Amino acid sequence: MVSKSYKASAPGSLMLFGEHAVLHGKHAIVAAVNHYIHVELVPRADRNIKITSSEFNEQLVALDKFAITKPYNYVLVAIKQYLKKITCGFDLKIKSDFPANIGFGSSAAVTVATLEVLALWLEGKSPDLMGLYRQAVKVVLLAHGVGSGADVAASVFGGVIAYQMKPVKIQRLNVKLPLVAVYSGYKTPTFEVIAKVEKERSRSPALFACLYNAIDCCVKNAIVAIKKNDLVRLGQLMNIHQGLQDALSVNDSILAELIFALRAMPNIYGAKISGAGLGDCVIGLGKIALNTFPQNNAQKKLGIKQIDVAVSRVGFTYVW
Amino acid sequence: MVSKSYKASAPGSLMLFGEHAVLHGKHAIVAAVNHYIHVELVPRADRNIKITSSEFNEQLVALDKFAITKPYNYVLVAIKQYLKKITCGFDLKIKSDFPANIGFGSSAAVTVATLEVLALWLEGKSPDLMGLYRQAVKVVLLAHGVGSGADVAASVFGGVIAYQMKPVKIQRLNVKLPLVAVYSGYKTPTFEVIAKVEKERSRSPALFACLYNAIDCCVKNAIVAIKKNDLVRLGQLMNIHQGLQDALSVNDSILAELIFALRAMPNIYGAKISGAGLGDCVIGLGKIALNTFPQNNAQKKLGIKQIDVAVSRVGFTYVW
Repeated sequence: MVSKSYKASAPGSLMLFGEHAVLHGKHAIVAAVNHYIHVELVPRADRNIKITSSEFNEQLVALDKFAITKPYNYVLVAIKQYLKKITCGFDLKIKSDFPANIGFGSSAAVTVATLEVLALWLEGKSPDLMGLYRQAVKVVLLAHGVGSGADVAASVFGGVIAYQMKPVKIQRLNVKLPLVAVYSGYKTPTFEVIAKVEKERSRSPALFACLYNAIDCCVKNAIVAIKKNDLVRLGQLMNIHQGLQDALSVNDSILAELIFALRAMPNIYGAKISGAGLGDCVIGLGKIALNTFPQNNAQKKLGIKQIDVAVSRVGFTYVW
Repeated sequence: MVSKSYKASAPGSLMLFGEHAVLHGKHAIVAAVNHYIHVELVPRADRNIKITSSEFNEQLVALDKFAITKPYNYVLVAIKQYLKKITCGFDLKIKSDFPANIGFGSSAAVTVATLEVLALWLEGKSPDLMGLYRQAVKVVLLAHGVGSGADVAASVFGGVIAYQMKPVKIQRLNVKLPLVAVYSGYKTPTFEVIAKVEKERSRSPALFACLYNAIDCCVKNAIVAIKKNDLVRLGQLMNIHQGLQDALSVNDSILAELIFALRAMPNIYGAKISGAGLGDCVIGLGKIALNTFPQNNAQKKLGIKQIDVAVSRVGFTYVW
């Protein structure tokens, strides 16, 4: 007998606007991208959970000695939400279109897809989108301790989203933004960057309140620009936003070099860091030829690479 | 018979904090530097004004056909203030310790020193400091159309000054700041940079109000740090301020490269653009060895050079 299998996919995401400030209730813009994480669940006859993935080593967890360990902590915390309903083991096969270290929100995507296959299997139905979003945010916070949920919203709903964390505001912006992503060759863990910024914020609360207000104003202008499809304006706002990220001390010489290189290109409207900063990707608004980056051997040596990326119009999808 | 001669000197200056925002009534910090402009006035028997300088070609202006022309427009506007009292020609010899294009506020310094020799000659006394400041600001605005007067204040009063334009607030901060200045190899005229920023401000008044508030908050924190002689904190605030200047779109790849290079040095607390931006100097807080810049042949080719600089404790001085 072939066991029934449950499949779900969720897109990764890129933060376009509002990094750091979003954690303090300010607006953000996040885009789902056309790089997906696919999760397949197949029930087993025994009481073991076997997790395999294209990214990390296989892991076997006994249902009766359930514990949450890295690197599958997001997946395991998601499973824990359903633990009481789980009556047998299962194979969980994770396939990712993109590496976990490039700032495409893989944790959010794998969480969303895992919760989805569990719901399909155990509840016989897909949760509503807001339910899935709330559940995934809870998992990410339990596994990570901190997070805005913006990447979760993108993974669930797809497209370009105007986002606010508290109170939750999720608005799909019906738009096709041309995007370029360039990976800087390294990443500082998001929680470390957030901790660094929060530490400086605690030293200068009034100044950081001003910076976050400026970011919020920038994001609100960007939402208007997106609705008008005004890419020139949107690019300018990205550049202004980048200065504010620099003011938060999450910029560095490599990111700055990539950003100025992008801005110097004729079809690029603006460029900035995507995400918490101190590594990961920079994004440009516009289109450039494939393999424009790395631009030279020095960049190649640093591991800088261009990632072909487009906005994904769909959020998670599933086969039941 | 040897004609009596009147001599005055005024220091150049570096903007440390508050660029652009100062034009909108926000706080700034400016430092007089140990590079001076020296002006000597010797009355002539005829009715000609002969201006000579270490920077530009000699110019002869007939007292009876007085007109204001470049490159001596600041000097000539200063002379115009006294035109009714001038009964004979004179030689005006200008000697500058530094080139006019390195963003050391040469226009303010030459204006202050010229007004001073004219006052000594024609009124038989030196004007009081506030009188000299107000007169020089008037001249700079007439010649230039725009300006904060911060550089004028530094040239008149010397030292490190907390400054506000409207209402005028000039506070000497009794401090010895270690400074490094690196010339980027090029300069965009200040009025052009201001016009560019003002144009963008007019498109996004609310956003720019946020940016200027953040700059103001940064400057006020910096004044506190200076009073406490807390160089670590002051350096951090310089870095934050730099991000805000980047947000004003007055940063570029060369300035960013120099700033990140300075920040990577062990004795540098922070670094930023000095002045309007898009060229001129970057400054670092701290000390580095002479000739650290240019760091390589590429920088040398661009005309990048390190300028030995220290805060000048004195403002203008004169020999009567």
